[in-house]
Amino acid sequence: MNITGSVISAPVQTNFNLNHMPSYYKRIVLASRPEGDIEPNTFRTELHPLSGLSVGDGEILVQVTWLSLDPAMRGYLRDARSYLPPVKIGETMRSQGLGVVIKAGNGSSVPVGQIVAGPFGEPILLRVTLLKLAGWTEYAVMKEKQVDKISVPKGAQDIDFLNTLGMPGLTAYFGIKEICDIKPGDKMIVSGAAGAVGSVACQLGKRAGAKVYAIAGSKEKCEWLERELGVDRAFNYKSTSFRKDLKEVGYIDVYFDNVGGDILDLILTRLNIGARIALCGAISQYNAAKPKGLQNYLTLIAMRAKIQGFIIFDYTAKFPAAIEEMAGALADGSLKSKFHVVEGIEQAPVALPWLFSGKNNGKLLVKVQTEPSAKL
Amino acid sequence: MNITGSVISAPVQTNFNLNHMPSYYKRIVLASRPEGDIEPNTFRTELHPLSGLSVGDGEILVQVTWLSLDPAMRGYLRDARSYLPPVKIGETMRSQGLGVVIKAGNGSSVPVGQIVAGPFGEPILLRVTLLKLAGWTEYAVMKEKQVDKISVPKGAQDIDFLNTLGMPGLTAYFGIKEICDIKPGDKMIVSGAAGAVGSVACQLGKRAGAKVYAIAGSKEKCEWLERELGVDRAFNYKSTSFRKDLKEVGYIDVYFDNVGGDILDLILTRLNIGARIALCGAISQYNAAKPKGLQNYLTLIAMRAKIQGFIIFDYTAKFPAAIEEMAGALADGSLKSKFHVVEGIEQAPVALPWLFSGKNNGKLLVKVQTEPSAKL
Repeated sequence: MNITGSVISAPVQTNFNLNHMPSYYKRIVLASRPEGDIEPNTFRTELHPLSGLSVGDGEILVQVTWLSLDPAMRGYLRDARSYLPPVKIGETMRSQGLGVVIKAGNGSSVPVGQIVAGPFGEPILLRVTLLKLAGWTEYAVMKEKQVDKISVPKGAQDIDFLNTLGMPGLTAYFGIKEICDIKPGDKMIVSGAAGAVGSVACQLGKRAGAKVYAIAGSKEKCEWLERELGVDRAFNYKSTSFRKDLKEVGYIDVYFDNVGGDILDLILTRLNIGARIALCGAISQYNAAKPKGLQNYLTLIAMRAKIQGFIIFDYTAKFPAAIEEMAGALADGSLKSKFHVVEGIEQAPVALPWLFSGKNNGKLLVKVQTEPSAKL
Repeated sequence: MNITGSVISAPVQTNFNLNHMPSYYKRIVLASRPEGDIEPNTFRTELHPLSGLSVGDGEILVQVTWLSLDPAMRGYLRDARSYLPPVKIGETMRSQGLGVVIKAGNGSSVPVGQIVAGPFGEPILLRVTLLKLAGWTEYAVMKEKQVDKISVPKGAQDIDFLNTLGMPGLTAYFGIKEICDIKPGDKMIVSGAAGAVGSVACQLGKRAGAKVYAIAGSKEKCEWLERELGVDRAFNYKSTSFRKDLKEVGYIDVYFDNVGGDILDLILTRLNIGARIALCGAISQYNAAKPKGLQNYLTLIAMRAKIQGFIIFDYTAKFPAAIEEMAGALADGSLKSKFHVVEGIEQAPVALPWLFSGKNNGKLLVKVQTEPSAKL
């Protein structure tokens, strides 16, 4: 199911009957740490009795409706020091998602179906809850502070909060605004440009006045980037003439890097003086047991250039303004997006590797349940 | 000849006799581009008639007294895009140096023995001329704008302008001030710490309130760094326990990198959140036909850290203030330096590789001539 623009309305239901709840729910846990690619034995699906989810004081029971699949999740599988601790073996796989509150514990300020407090937006819209790292589960008991309420602005939809108005879009936003320092006329390259982050970075680059050159992994993605998103030129890195073609861009001022590896190393040889490289991700390297080394970093000296990593957690105070700005652009159609939806939570482990092979075509989401109280 | 502190007075003479000038002078040119290490056939010494150096209108004849040997010179031998064009085959090897004006052309504003105009300092001291990239030659005809006058402050000496008050010292100064953003209590590592740049970086780091950890290549250098320069601890990277020892420092906030390669890659795994890496040089890689790759750059994302290259040419407007500050510190003894001097221009190609093997012990200089008009 490919969803483009705002044609979808997320099927979040408020009329449900607790008597129709299933006896068991699915939860997907980390079974073993992959050395390289994610494999069938990396995750394990478990059935748990719903009766085991007791809702304590100040807690809420959330039915998960959507899960987001993001490249950063590969990092959560790695037992290494990072900005979040690794997911433990046997633990529910960490993920962002949307859900609806279906039961509220004693003393909870959150009645069933109502919004919960959180850092995102204002309490305009009820019903929808953004789960912070709730994980791959159909139901979850959470503390109120673990969830953010979201308010879906006019012209947007709830799942935009897993894309343009959520982690991917905000990542692009703060990378562009805080690291890239774009001046009108700058030449900018974006890799992973057809992805959730990259496609927003391309569009924000254009809005900032840059000439934007996109790198993606198929002819179709390149056409979408040029025709729909308006990049100046898109390059297919799987093409045999890719390196030659990219040289036609000349030297560049900004590189928004989502892929790392060989392409980063290539672009290190193509920098203008004072170039900025925003190191957002390195999707080409996440499955590598030993990442491929950068050979050409010495050009950073000659070109007085920088490579800078960033994480959106550092900019939470600026989230509301960023969301408001991008929601306005979504509403007036000047900011475009595309979704690629798979159905059923059991598809999450199947679809996650697509992010690394490039099989998905749009922001990859799992539609967990079409009915809030579907029978198992 | 090892010279420590201010015990040397540079033998610049003003009383010379043009009748005692030699008939020929030596010039060392690039004979072939080394693939890896500098080799005996990399340079060629040539004899040229002094009569061939005709001094035109607005030109000056300079007798070179000192040459500076710097790691950056390895880069000038490489036929690659950089901040300066490569030295051509057959061309005089580019170098910084000091000299004295011994003849002035018609219309020149520079009488014999007098200072020439330039961006450094004020015209306080006559006689000494800093040659900008004049090269490995005993004599040179230059345009006035090719040379800087220097004024040796009280408590300093002329050769400080090839070290603490010249390119190495200014490199450390602007790397520390413009890139490292040191806050009191920061943990800072300096590699190549016993070198001309590194030793100043260590001392400026201490002055900025950092805890400074130095990396150098011998027990003697480490002792000098701890005892004379006051670093908190110095590590010998040739020690078998180096990696283990360095871990005792914990995670760090600032890395002033002069060496690149393996040590940079190691320190990429030892960063605190928001760490800054000033990429000053990569002396371990300059002789490599294919530099060793950085494996661990993905930590830049998790730690929101940056690697930034810089070149002092971008800060020329701030040179006078920087020189004044460091000259004051040299004079009051709070900034220390050490020289390693070889004698005779023909030693320049012999000594240059010492920078990469670590054989030198102090800022490496070539004393070109002890007598301004030495017979060949």
